Amino acid sequence: MPDKPLVVLAFSGGLDTSFCVPYLIERGYDVHTLFVNTGGMDAAESDAIRARAESLGAAGHSEVDAGPTLWETFVVPFVQGGAKYMDRYPLLCSDRYVIVAESVKLAHELGAAAVAHGCTAMGNDQFRFDQSIRCLTDLPILAPIRDIQGVTDAPRKYEMEYLAERGFEVSSAAKTYTINENVLGVTVSGSEIDELGEPGDASRKLTKPRAEWPAAPLSVTIAFEQGVPVSLDGERITGVETLSKLNKAFGAYGVGRGVYTGDTIVGLKGRIVFECPGLEVLLAAHKALEELTLTRSQNEFKAIAATEWTKLVFGGLFYEPLRADLEAFLASTQANVTGSVTVRTDGGACLAVAVDTSNALMDDKAVYAQKAAWSAADAEGFIKIAGNSSALGAAAASKRGGAAANTVLKELKAAAGVNA
Amino acid sequence: MPDKPLVVLAFSGGLDTSFCVPYLIERGYDVHTLFVNTGGMDAAESDAIRARAESLGAAGHSEVDAGPTLWETFVVPFVQGGAKYMDRYPLLCSDRYVIVAESVKLAHELGAAAVAHGCTAMGNDQFRFDQSIRCLTDLPILAPIRDIQGVTDAPRKYEMEYLAERGFEVSSAAKTYTINENVLGVTVSGSEIDELGEPGDASRKLTKPRAEWPAAPLSVTIAFEQGVPVSLDGERITGVETLSKLNKAFGAYGVGRGVYTGDTIVGLKGRIVFECPGLEVLLAAHKALEELTLTRSQNEFKAIAATEWTKLVFGGLFYEPLRADLEAFLASTQANVTGSVTVRTDGGACLAVAVDTSNALMDDKAVYAQKAAWSAADAEGFIKIAGNSSALGAAAASKRGGAAANTVLKELKAAAGVNA
Amino acid sequence: MPDKPLVVLAFSGGLDTSFCVPYLIERGYDVHTLFVNTGGMDAAESDAIRARAESLGAAGHSEVDAGPTLWETFVVPFVQGGAKYMDRYPLLCSDRYVIVAESVKLAHELGAAAVAHGCTAMGNDQFRFDQSIRCLTDLPILAPIRDIQGVTDAPRKYEMEYLAERGFEVSSAAKTYTINENVLGVTVSGSEIDELGEPGDASRKLTKPRAEWPAAPLSVTIAFEQGVPVSLDGERITGVETLSKLNKAFGAYGVGRGVYTGDTIVGLKGRIVFECPGLEVLLAAHKALEELTLTRSQNEFKAIAATEWTKLVFGGLFYEPLRADLEAFLASTQANVTGSVTVRTDGGACLAVAVDTSNALMDDKAVYAQKAAWSAADAEGFIKIAGNSSALGAAAASKRGGAAANTVLKELKAAAGVNA
Amino acid sequence: MPDKPLVVLAFSGGLDTSFCVPYLIERGYDVHTLFVNTGGMDAAESDAIRARAESLGAAGHSEVDAGPTLWETFVVPFVQGGAKYMDRYPLLCSDRYVIVAESVKLAHELGAAAVAHGCTAMGNDQFRFDQSIRCLTDLPILAPIRDIQGVTDAPRKYEMEYLAERGFEVSSAAKTYTINENVLGVTVSGSEIDELGEPGDASRKLTKPRAEWPAAPLSVTIAFEQGVPVSLDGERITGVETLSKLNKAFGAYGVGRGVYTGDTIVGLKGRIVFECPGLEVLLAAHKALEELTLTRSQNEFKAIAATEWTKLVFGGLFYEPLRADLEAFLASTQANVTGSVTVRTDGGACLAVAVDTSNALMDDKAVYAQKAAWSAADAEGFIKIAGNSSALGAAAASKRGGAAANTVLKELKAAAGVNA
Repeated sequence: MPDKPLVVLAFSGGLDTSFCVPYLIERGYDVHTLFVNTGGMDAAESDAIRARAESLGAAGHSEVDAGPTLWETFVVPFVQGGAKYMDRYPLLCSDRYVIVAESVKLAHELGAAAVAHGCTAMGNDQFRFDQSIRCLTDLPILAPIRDIQGVTDAPRKYEMEYLAERGFEVSSAAKTYTINENVLGVTVSGSEIDELGEPGDASRKLTKPRAEWPAAPLSVTIAFEQGVPVSLDGERITGVETLSKLNKAFGAYGVGRGVYTGDTIVGLKGRIVFECPGLEVLLAAHKALEELTLTRSQNEFKAIAATEWTKLVFGGLFYEPLRADLEAFLASTQANVTGSVTVRTDGGACLAVAVDTSNALMDDKAVYAQKAAWSAADAEGFIKIAGNSSALGAAAASKRGGAAANTVLKELKAAAGVNA
Repeated sequence: MPDKPLVVLAFSGGLDTSFCVPYLIERGYDVHTLFVNTGGMDAAESDAIRARAESLGAAGHSEVDAGPTLWETFVVPFVQGGAKYMDRYPLLCSDRYVIVAESVKLAHELGAAAVAHGCTAMGNDQFRFDQSIRCLTDLPILAPIRDIQGVTDAPRKYEMEYLAERGFEVSSAAKTYTINENVLGVTVSGSEIDELGEPGDASRKLTKPRAEWPAAPLSVTIAFEQGVPVSLDGERITGVETLSKLNKAFGAYGVGRGVYTGDTIVGLKGRIVFECPGLEVLLAAHKALEELTLTRSQNEFKAIAATEWTKLVFGGLFYEPLRADLEAFLASTQANVTGSVTVRTDGGACLAVAVDTSNALMDDKAVYAQKAAWSAADAEGFIKIAGNSSALGAAAASKRGGAAANTVLKELKAAAGVNA
Repeated sequence: MPDKPLVVLAFSGGLDTSFCVPYLIERGYDVHTLFVNTGGMDAAESDAIRARAESLGAAGHSEVDAGPTLWETFVVPFVQGGAKYMDRYPLLCSDRYVIVAESVKLAHELGAAAVAHGCTAMGNDQFRFDQSIRCLTDLPILAPIRDIQGVTDAPRKYEMEYLAERGFEVSSAAKTYTINENVLGVTVSGSEIDELGEPGDASRKLTKPRAEWPAAPLSVTIAFEQGVPVSLDGERITGVETLSKLNKAFGAYGVGRGVYTGDTIVGLKGRIVFECPGLEVLLAAHKALEELTLTRSQNEFKAIAATEWTKLVFGGLFYEPLRADLEAFLASTQANVTGSVTVRTDGGACLAVAVDTSNALMDDKAVYAQKAAWSAADAEGFIKIAGNSSALGAAAASKRGGAAANTVLKELKAAAGVNA
Repeated sequence: MPDKPLVVLAFSGGLDTSFCVPYLIERGYDVHTLFVNTGGMDAAESDAIRARAESLGAAGHSEVDAGPTLWETFVVPFVQGGAKYMDRYPLLCSDRYVIVAESVKLAHELGAAAVAHGCTAMGNDQFRFDQSIRCLTDLPILAPIRDIQGVTDAPRKYEMEYLAERGFEVSSAAKTYTINENVLGVTVSGSEIDELGEPGDASRKLTKPRAEWPAAPLSVTIAFEQGVPVSLDGERITGVETLSKLNKAFGAYGVGRGVYTGDTIVGLKGRIVFECPGLEVLLAAHKALEELTLTRSQNEFKAIAATEWTKLVFGGLFYEPLRADLEAFLASTQANVTGSVTVRTDGGACLAVAVDTSNALMDDKAVYAQKAAWSAADAEGFIKIAGNSSALGAAAASKRGGAAANTVLKELKAAAGVNA
């Protein structure tokens, strides 16, 4: 026993990671399973995962509540940045980075010889796991599910038979969808979703169908201090509690459901349904506050920086140094983002309907379209000079006339009677 | 009479442009009013505007249906680009550019001495009008409402009294909101909206409240050819008809309503409610199709180019040559964007739920997360090499240890047990 | 006398600011002149400026050595960012922001009623001064040279006559060029430079003509600690000393001279000659070090952030909050940028020829094109997967065949015999 | 013999591609070699390459002069874009894409069964070749040099011995550097260059050392029509002739030499010396013309689009559809870029010293800093309104006082006496 090398396996209790335990044992490892709880699972569920690991022959099992780390290292900068991947997907996959960090930490503590995960060779998660492990440690990486791709075309069937042959319990329920859940939300893929069709009702997990929406509207108020959500309806609760409460409350109104086709890390198109009522509400609230408290230049460039941050996090490069640099930028932009925002739903969508802040970049001297701090002559001077470059360019285009490159411009000028 | 200079006035029949008619006449001009119909107004409304112009003393009046031009020059590239201003506002103000083009065209046809508009000195529209006129003609610009800013603090009251004194009819209805409507949608501002409060029900124009939403869901199918919407539920109809139908159909479900605070051209914060069900549906459908038919590189960079296009169009620089350059880019990207998309609403929001296209960048050899056209070894080689730069960077950060600049990274590594 | 309001005037001793002194006195102000030394002027020159101010009737005069502030607040982040304006102009105008800060500081200390500057209404500097003053204080701004634009078409002549009439000494030397000098370098405009012609030899200030270049090459070594230049040829000297030494040493070889046409803040084209040997050397050295010590992702995005920083600094928005946010980003990126770089000139240009650093993102396992840490199969897997999206896109374009949008691609494919 | 499959091999006559001929023959292929002349090699050199191919046993040999295609498909858009990779490297590797296109074309013409190249598994070129072949054809790819990486650590030695054993002539000259040359220029790597040291004199190929520079300056004038270089000193010559003449003329003055460390496609750092006098001159001339003929908005965004174009071309994605889209943009921007530019060298560097164009975005009404088309009041109005957002942001930062995020701003304000 003392001679066997130890491997720490990130373990969820599902088919893939269950398969990994006997597979690794048969290849000569002692397997220490680690359940990283990023989904707010309760004690009973957590205990069941432990029991499953032990029944499979794990030499040891650990569990860690990673919700607070997920909030601090992902949710806060994500909400501050505000950029979804491809303007659509709210990065519900980001718990992978916390799972890796905890796995590597435990591997170092236990003096393990390797780190293992249950990702396939076909998707994004193998990149997120491998690359993150590689950034955090020199330990080798074991990926049994990827390994068996060479020996089977039907890995799930292969895994079930492998486990059944060895006497381990296997759920025989046929699965329509592949489902992934954590405190951030739920993603669903497979079946008609893969085939570009309309997702069936069975793909709803957090968001209720129209028939179940309450009739009365719902409003909540979220307070931010320097861009960090700190309270919900006046109550200071943790980030994980905030997400959980919002997921439930706004999910009841069908808020936060989407379907999109993403450009994956491996270059293929991947279509998924996602549901994340809580993140949707936080993003809407934060954006409404930023619209009032950042300068135009900040709003413009922050969108660019946040898009880059999101690209790194989606793309498996969470531990790339640029992420920290971008977070230094994001943190700096939040200095003025303090206030509270009311988000309301009548069902189907949510809207940040009211903002209360003493930091709005407004003053008493000028209210847009109502009261100016300048004269008509000032305004004319402004327009004249601010428009100089474009006006000279338009004049040159008009002078050239036939320039093919400016056809749209030319046609509009032609429509406007300019000698084009 | 033949000696008087002629001015073409962009005329809507509202208070501001009504005031401009006698004001300009009293300053020695013959006034030719032009109503540019960008809102699908019917003949009765159009006739009323003509009658109003004549009653105010206009020497002539013209009207033009600019819906098709608005569709071609704004809606098509906007939907293809897909970028809202500040990721929020769907550029409902864009009819101004068509109004200017038609006004300048008419001024040239009539040999007018000037072009006039009814914008104030306080907002964005003066920039859009002045700058566009300047790009299209050398004729001088007259802006009566801007001029009177120096003589009154309450221009609306001043205008009403001015008209009443001269015996012209003036609506005495107190207005809660400033409302702007065209075929693109409606914007509403003023009152509690300016004060960051929750917009009242009276601010709803196109979008019905929850109590009136039909119980059954609604689905429509929109077909695109090279990025241009060409049919609705199989029927080839014009762009303006498409928008009108979608506005009505999805407005009944409350779709397409928003409230946001924008960074205006004059540097102040301006808060508005907007409603645009039809644009919302077109944008959702087009994006779902692009997600499948553009490469990752195209999807990434197109978002940047579209954001720039939107910045120009919001910012009054519609006739800046860069806009045409960006549209050459956008048009090129659309070569593969052909197919049809089903958009569904259950109320409150719409979702592009299904896509039918033979141009999806998918093949039979590989389906994301289901079937790979590569081996496990290929995947490992990919991850190893694609992650090289970040891994070397992470190692350097780890080696430096105390580097303040990478604190987040460091903490996560610390959490992961790495010797930091 | 005690009743007169006090104005602090940023004073250089040149014609424009000399004119301002009696002009402001005659309008009822006590004038306190401030000379902000950003050019390393020596005591004699500084004394002459003081004497000039007193002879013109200044009620008081102060001087401050702002070189260290200019280094800290401009040179360090500029070199770290590495972006020239329009990829050409090294922001030699940046001393204006330090001059304003010192002027406002003094105005507050003296309880002054206003701040004054000598900028015209025609250029960029008025924007830089006015906007910076406005960001730092509520005090009113006086700009005599801008004011007289309404009364004269030939301000310099007007100013000279004004001074001569009042008995003040005026240099009668005709000036070919407008010249601006500080420790960053020299800018020259006017005459043939404005007319797009080849700049004459008289426009050389810091850079020697070919005939005077030493025959032997010159090499210096600059050490950086976390992106900050800290020593020159092993000697720890101040930033201002570094710039002065490099300006002299590399100017002798003609290094750092340029001519370009810039898009100015007021929207016109402005052509200038600039000379900045020292900045050129620092930029080259820093970039060579960054190429080795930043990740690919960092190198890519840092260029974008730095371009934005440079746009703000050129464009008069030095005190815009976004600048601080971008500097938080830049500072974070520099954690690994430690090492020393040898820069050599043989005349005309300089090149960073050698780098010595223990932070290069290289390891012993892999040397580019010499030794791989991966197998041929790994490389093939990498290429296969990394190229997936583009290959699918190219296949779709090929299938479409006649697509106008991809003409270049199509032609190349045609050339390659693909059935297009 | 008729049963053997045919492979088209891109052939240069060097060690690597020489090795490939017998290697492929021994694996059962008929080998048809193709020499794609992108370097302006003369008939004698071309004949020698043919003779070499035949001596090695090639079943057939073809040659094609690809200079014109290289000019049209690479040089023209590159000069128009103006972006070097990492702001340093002028993409001298771009001939690879033309070599691939010609190889695939020939393979289709000959009905070949595969396409072969001589790239290793360690560098960028394998990616450029493989990915481009894959975009243009479904034929399989053979890469003998990559294959042997698994059997030897010293591939060059292995290849020499392999050839010698079979009786083929092998040059025994030890090589200090790896050198790559085409009409675009020369790249040099290896030895002290890899080791971050100062490149030795032997690394000079096109650029003469200081001692050989002519004493008199050299000036040439290049005319552009809509952004395309069309004549040199008034003479209409081909693009390849232009590059060749400029390489020789400016190389004599040492112009266009650089050394940089690049982020390679495989994620490692790669350091090279490059020499490209002709491209350097064309880029300088074109930029000087664009500075005058594009609007500020065009200049700003074109830099972003060109950077993306360059990233694709460096990164092996020449046949990615986005490249064509970006070229549609670039072409549109060039409509006004017509005129001629004089470029001068005194040795070491070149400068675009004079421009002659009737398309400059200048008019007679306003000359920057000399004559304004606006009043002082206009200027004040402009500054006031254009600076609104930043001023409100600065005021908020000042009000917050202790905000850590704006430390630099705060300190400058503190220095300026503002109550921070």
